[in-house]
Amino acid sequence: MKQITVGVLGAGRIGRMHTENLVHAVPEVRVKAVASPHLDVGWARSLGIQVAANDNDAVLGDPEIEAVVIAAPSGLHCDLIRRAAAAGKHVFCEKPLAFEAEPIEAARRAAEEAGVTLQVGFNRRSDPSLLDLAEAVRDGRIGEVQTLRVTNRDPQAPPVDFVKRSGGLFFDFVIHDLDTVRFLSASEIVEIYAAGGGLIDPAIGDAGDIDTAVVTLRLASGALAVIDASRQAVYGYDQRFEVFGSAGSVVVDNTRPSTRVLSTTGGVLARTPHGGFVARYHDAFIAELRAFAAAVRGDRPVVAGAADALAAVRAAAAARTSLAEGRPVRLGRAAPAADGGTTS
Amino acid sequence: MKQITVGVLGAGRIGRMHTENLVHAVPEVRVKAVASPHLDVGWARSLGIQVAANDNDAVLGDPEIEAVVIAAPSGLHCDLIRRAAAAGKHVFCEKPLAFEAEPIEAARRAAEEAGVTLQVGFNRRSDPSLLDLAEAVRDGRIGEVQTLRVTNRDPQAPPVDFVKRSGGLFFDFVIHDLDTVRFLSASEIVEIYAAGGGLIDPAIGDAGDIDTAVVTLRLASGALAVIDASRQAVYGYDQRFEVFGSAGSVVVDNTRPSTRVLSTTGGVLARTPHGGFVARYHDAFIAELRAFAAAVRGDRPVVAGAADALAAVRAAAAARTSLAEGRPVRLGRAAPAADGGTTS
Amino acid sequence: MKQITVGVLGAGRIGRMHTENLVHAVPEVRVKAVASPHLDVGWARSLGIQVAANDNDAVLGDPEIEAVVIAAPSGLHCDLIRRAAAAGKHVFCEKPLAFEAEPIEAARRAAEEAGVTLQVGFNRRSDPSLLDLAEAVRDGRIGEVQTLRVTNRDPQAPPVDFVKRSGGLFFDFVIHDLDTVRFLSASEIVEIYAAGGGLIDPAIGDAGDIDTAVVTLRLASGALAVIDASRQAVYGYDQRFEVFGSAGSVVVDNTRPSTRVLSTTGGVLARTPHGGFVARYHDAFIAELRAFAAAVRGDRPVVAGAADALAAVRAAAAARTSLAEGRPVRLGRAAPAADGGTTS
Amino acid sequence: MKQITVGVLGAGRIGRMHTENLVHAVPEVRVKAVASPHLDVGWARSLGIQVAANDNDAVLGDPEIEAVVIAAPSGLHCDLIRRAAAAGKHVFCEKPLAFEAEPIEAARRAAEEAGVTLQVGFNRRSDPSLLDLAEAVRDGRIGEVQTLRVTNRDPQAPPVDFVKRSGGLFFDFVIHDLDTVRFLSASEIVEIYAAGGGLIDPAIGDAGDIDTAVVTLRLASGALAVIDASRQAVYGYDQRFEVFGSAGSVVVDNTRPSTRVLSTTGGVLARTPHGGFVARYHDAFIAELRAFAAAVRGDRPVVAGAADALAAVRAAAAARTSLAEGRPVRLGRAAPAADGGTTS
Repeated sequence: MKQITVGVLGAGRIGRMHTENLVHAVPEVRVKAVASPHLDVGWARSLGIQVAANDNDAVLGDPEIEAVVIAAPSGLHCDLIRRAAAAGKHVFCEKPLAFEAEPIEAARRAAEEAGVTLQVGFNRRSDPSLLDLAEAVRDGRIGEVQTLRVTNRDPQAPPVDFVKRSGGLFFDFVIHDLDTVRFLSASEIVEIYAAGGGLIDPAIGDAGDIDTAVVTLRLASGALAVIDASRQAVYGYDQRFEVFGSAGSVVVDNTRPSTRVLSTTGGVLARTPHGGFVARYHDAFIAELRAFAAAVRGDRPVVAGAADALAAVRAAAAARTSLAEGRPVRLGRAAPAADGGTTS
Repeated sequence: MKQITVGVLGAGRIGRMHTENLVHAVPEVRVKAVASPHLDVGWARSLGIQVAANDNDAVLGDPEIEAVVIAAPSGLHCDLIRRAAAAGKHVFCEKPLAFEAEPIEAARRAAEEAGVTLQVGFNRRSDPSLLDLAEAVRDGRIGEVQTLRVTNRDPQAPPVDFVKRSGGLFFDFVIHDLDTVRFLSASEIVEIYAAGGGLIDPAIGDAGDIDTAVVTLRLASGALAVIDASRQAVYGYDQRFEVFGSAGSVVVDNTRPSTRVLSTTGGVLARTPHGGFVARYHDAFIAELRAFAAAVRGDRPVVAGAADALAAVRAAAAARTSLAEGRPVRLGRAAPAADGGTTS
Repeated sequence: MKQITVGVLGAGRIGRMHTENLVHAVPEVRVKAVASPHLDVGWARSLGIQVAANDNDAVLGDPEIEAVVIAAPSGLHCDLIRRAAAAGKHVFCEKPLAFEAEPIEAARRAAEEAGVTLQVGFNRRSDPSLLDLAEAVRDGRIGEVQTLRVTNRDPQAPPVDFVKRSGGLFFDFVIHDLDTVRFLSASEIVEIYAAGGGLIDPAIGDAGDIDTAVVTLRLASGALAVIDASRQAVYGYDQRFEVFGSAGSVVVDNTRPSTRVLSTTGGVLARTPHGGFVARYHDAFIAELRAFAAAVRGDRPVVAGAADALAAVRAAAAARTSLAEGRPVRLGRAAPAADGGTTS
Repeated sequence: MKQITVGVLGAGRIGRMHTENLVHAVPEVRVKAVASPHLDVGWARSLGIQVAANDNDAVLGDPEIEAVVIAAPSGLHCDLIRRAAAAGKHVFCEKPLAFEAEPIEAARRAAEEAGVTLQVGFNRRSDPSLLDLAEAVRDGRIGEVQTLRVTNRDPQAPPVDFVKRSGGLFFDFVIHDLDTVRFLSASEIVEIYAAGGGLIDPAIGDAGDIDTAVVTLRLASGALAVIDASRQAVYGYDQRFEVFGSAGSVVVDNTRPSTRVLSTTGGVLARTPHGGFVARYHDAFIAELRAFAAAVRGDRPVVAGAADALAAVRAAAAARTSLAEGRPVRLGRAAPAADGGTTS
C-alpha cells in the first residue's frame, strides 16, 4: 500500500520523538519534511528526511505532503491546524489544542470543511494497557461503572519557565486525565470540584500555579471519578488507572524497565516505574501515529478528535474555576462529538 | 502479671467476636461476664464465662470487673460509657460513639473525671499493615506528606434496615476512613467536600442514604486526602491505603486468604481479597484489645481516644453537610486531644 | 461437644508452641497435662494446665488423658508412640518419627493394634495456601501434573550442635519437602538424585552434613519434581511451591508480615517473608491440631499418617545415598498407606 | 558515524525478524542484501533492501558487505561462518552453531584467523531484565552465588518435523538455559544430571526426543543450578530466572503484554505472559544486534562468542548422555574463552 507523505511541524523534544517514531516505527508513512525555527539539520538528514526547513510554509506549501504532525508550541496549534486544513492536509496535533474553546471550535470547523482528518495527541488512548482496561470495561466485565480513579504523577516538576507558559496544571497535565476519564467511562463530565495546592515547589506557586491536585468529577452516567495529580513523584512516573463497577474492578499498574526483584535483609526490592512519559508511553506514541495513518486512509475513526480536545479543555477550565472559587462547577451540556471521536 | 477482669456489654456479631478474641487471644484479661438482652447462654458457657446476663447492670454493678468492652447498639454507647466510668471501670467502646459531638464530649468528661481509660474501636490503628505504613510515614521515609488515599469498599451492601439506623454512609462506614486519614497524616481535617450517590441499590437511596462516595479532605498541614468508599465490591473487601510525599510513597494493599496463583489459558488468577472485616482485620481486632489492656495498665497511651472519636464524627457531619449542600465545608478548629489520643 | 483431654510430651520450642496453640486456639481439646524434664511450671500454670510433670509417665499413666501430642526429642518419638498406643491414647507426633523405617513400622503397628489415631506433624498439609494449591491440582485445573517445584530455605542455619543430632539436611529439613511432593502430586517417589554441598557454613560440613541441596525426584505418575533447599536465606523464610501441568500451573508464594510497599528513589520495597516457621505456618500449626481432634473423633481421616512418615523417611534415606554415591537411587515399591494417610 | 553494511543469510521466521529489526531499530547498520532459497522479494523490497538473492554467494561475494547475520538452517551455520570469515566479514550467527564441538572449533579458528568478530545469538544475554539481574549478581548484592534456577517453558510444543531436525530438547531449547547459567554465574559447568521424559506429546517420544526435563548442574564455583524446561506451558512463554546467594536472591519474573488486572467474583485476573519468544525478547533481539554492531566497531567485546557456544554445546551433549545413561556426567575442563566471551 502506498505510504502517506508526511511533514512534521516542530522539532522540540516531542517533535523529534514523533519524527523518529514516524521514521522507524510507522511503515504506513514517509516523512518528507520537518520544519522548526532552530532545526538540527544533521539530525533530520540522519533520519533520511529530504526537506529540513526553518519555516512551516515549506511544509504547508508542499503539495506532495498529505498530512502533518504538529508539535509546535501550544499557542500555535490551532492556527497551524487551520492553515494545514486549508491546504488540504490531514492533521495530527499534540495536546493541548488551545486553552480556550473558541480556537478549538474554529480548528474543528476548518478540518470539517476541508474534509481532512484531525487527530489530537491524547496518547493514552493508544496505550496497550489502557486499551486493555477499556476493553474490559466496554465488554461489560465490571458491569456498570461506578467510580474511576486516575493517578498521574510526573517524576519531576518542570522548570518554572515552562510552568508559566504551560497553561497551568489543569491545562498542561491534568488534561490527559480528564480525557482519560471520558475515554474509560464513555461518559461526559458534568461537574468538577478541584482541590489543590503548592506542596512541592514554592516557585510554582509564585508563578500562579499549583503542583498538587485532587479533582473530583461527576459524570453524566452518575459515576464519580477522582484524579490525583502531582508534578513530582521522586520514585518515577506514576501512572495508574482504575475503573470500579457493579461487577468488579479493573486496574492498570505502573510499568517498569525490568521485572527484577532483589531480596536482601533490607527488604524485597523491585525497580521503580519508568522515569518519564517517553519510556512509559513509548508504544502508545507509536500506536497513535499508526492509528492516525489508518484514520487518514479511512480504515478507522480517529482515536481522539477535536470534540475530545474541546471537552477536555472545557473540563480543565471548570477545574481552574473550581479551584479559584472553592466550589464545584457544573459544565454545560457538551456538544456531541461530530468528528469520529469516541464520544460520537 | 495479674489478669484484668473484664465484662462485655453486647453480644451481637461484633460483641461475640470481641468476646471470643478476649477469651482466646488476649492473655492479659479474664472475661468474667457478658451481658446482652438475647444472650446465648450456652455460647457464653462454652467460653468458660462465669456470668451470662441479660442486663448490663449485672456487669456494671460487679465490683470485681475492672473494665468493660461495649459492643451494644450505637445509640447506647455514650450512656454506657458514662455509667461504666461512674462505676470506675475502664472502657473500650466500639465506634461510632455517637452521631453528634455532645454525647461524646459528655462521655469523655465522664471518663476523665473518673480517671478511667477510654478507648474507641478504630481497629485499623492496630492493623499490622497500617501500623507498618504509619511507621514509614513517621520515620520520614516519604518526606513531607502531600496526598493520602483511602479505598474502602465493603463486599456487600448491608440490609436496608441496617442502613436506616446506621447513621448513614459517613457515620457508619466512612468514619473509619476519616479516622485513618487523621491517624496516617497526624494532621487535622480542615475542609471536606463530599460527592456521592446511590449507584448500587435504589433501596439505600429510598432510605435517604448513599452507597458510593468520593470525599476530598484538606488537612491542617496543607496535605490533601481522598476517600473512595463503596458499599459493595463484589470481589471482596477492598482496603487499600496510600500516603504520598516529597520523598516517596507508601502503600498497603489488600490481604488475601492465600497466596495461590493459578495460570491457565484464561489468565493468571490470584485469590480475591478477604470476604469481610472479620477476616481482614482479625489481627487488628485482637491487637486493639491487647493495646487496651496495656493502656489500662498504664503501659502505653490509648490507641484511639474520645478526642479521635469526636474529630471523626465532626468530619462525618461535615461530609454530610457537604453532600447535602453541594459545597466544601470547613471544620472548626478541633479541640486538642486530651486523653492520650494520637492527636495530643 | 465434649472436649478431648490431651497431654503434651515435651516442652521445648515446638512443644511449647503446640501447647499454647492447643490452649488458645483448639477449642476441641482441653490440655490437662504437660511433661518435660526441665519444665517451666509457671508457664504451664499460666496456661491453666492442671498437671505439670517432669516425667512422661504422669501423662501416659493418666487414664483421663485420651490423646497425647509428642514433641520430645526425635530419638524418643517412636518409643513414646508405642507406649501411648499401649495406653490406648491417640497420638499426634512431631516429625521425623525416626531416621529409619523399622521403628516407624513398629509404631504404626502399635497404633493399628491399639486402634488409636496416629498423626504425623507434617504441618504444611494443613497450611491454607498449600491446601488451596492442592485443591486446584485435585480439581484438575492444571490438568495432568508434569513437574513440581519446592523452594525451602530457612532464614538462618541452625547451631552445629543441632545439626549433629538432627539427622542431617534430608531427614531434618528436606523431609518436609519430600512429603509435600507426595501430598501435592498424590503420587509416590520412585527415584531420587540429590546434589548438594556445604556452601554456607564450613562447620556444617565438618559435622558431616550439607547445607544446600537440589534434589530431583521421579514420581510413579511419570512427573518430575525438584526441591531446592538451603539452610540460610538471609532475607527470610523462603517457602514457595509450584505445580505445573498440561493445563496450567499453580503456585504459592511467600507470605509476609505486612503488605506494605515503599517507593522511593531507591526502588520499590516490599517486606521480606516471615522470619521463620512459627510465623509462616502459624495457621497451619493450629489447623493440624484441629484436624487431629477431628480424626480422633472419627470425623475425618488423618491428614498425615505413619505411611506418610515412612515414605518420607525412605525418600530421605535414598537422597542421602544418592548424595554419598553420586548417582540416582531407585526406591522400592512403597507399601500402600493403611492408616488413612493420603496415599491410601 | 558511518553505518556498517550488512547482509542477512536466511529469511525464515528468525531471519525475517532479524532483518526487520536491523532495518527499523539498528541505526548502526544498513542492510544491503538478504539471501534465502525461497525469498519473498516483495518483503525485502518493502524494507528498502537493495539485493534480494536466492543464493548466499550474492552476499558473501559482495565486497561492500562488512558483516553478515546468519539465520540459515542450523546445519549450515558453521560452514557459513567459515565462508564469511574467509571473505573477511564479521559474523553474527544464530544458535546453535552446531550439535558437536568440532565444527564450532573450526568456525572459531576461522574467525580468529580472519580477525573478524563472531557473535552467537544467545539473545538472553541482551535482555534488559536478565542484564539487570546479572548486574545485581556481579555487583555483589547477593553475595556468593549458591544456587541458580532457570524456568524455560515454551507456549506450545513445536511440530514433530521440527523436533526431528532440531537436535533435541537439550540442543535446541535447553541450550539457552545452559548458557544462561554460565552467564549469570560467571562459572563453568562441571557436572550435569538430566532427568526428563515425554509428558506432553507421545509423538515427540516417538521421534526419540523428550519434552520435559529437570537438569541439575554443578558449577566450578561450587554453586548448584537447576533448569526446569518444558515444551508446552499453555498459559504462555514462561521465562523466570533466579540467583540465590549468601547475601540474598535476585529474580526476574515473566513479562506480560499489559499490566491489566481484573477483579471479579471469580478472582483477581492478570494477563498471561507473552505468547512467545518474539514478543518476550523483542528488546533483547534488537539489543544483541546493536551490541554486535558495537563489537564490530571495536567498542565492546562480543556478548557471546564461540567459546560460549562451545561450552553450551558440550553441556547439552553431557545432558544427553546423562539422560541416556541415567547418571550424572562430568564435563572436561572447558578451554578458556579466547574471543572476548564472558568466560575470558
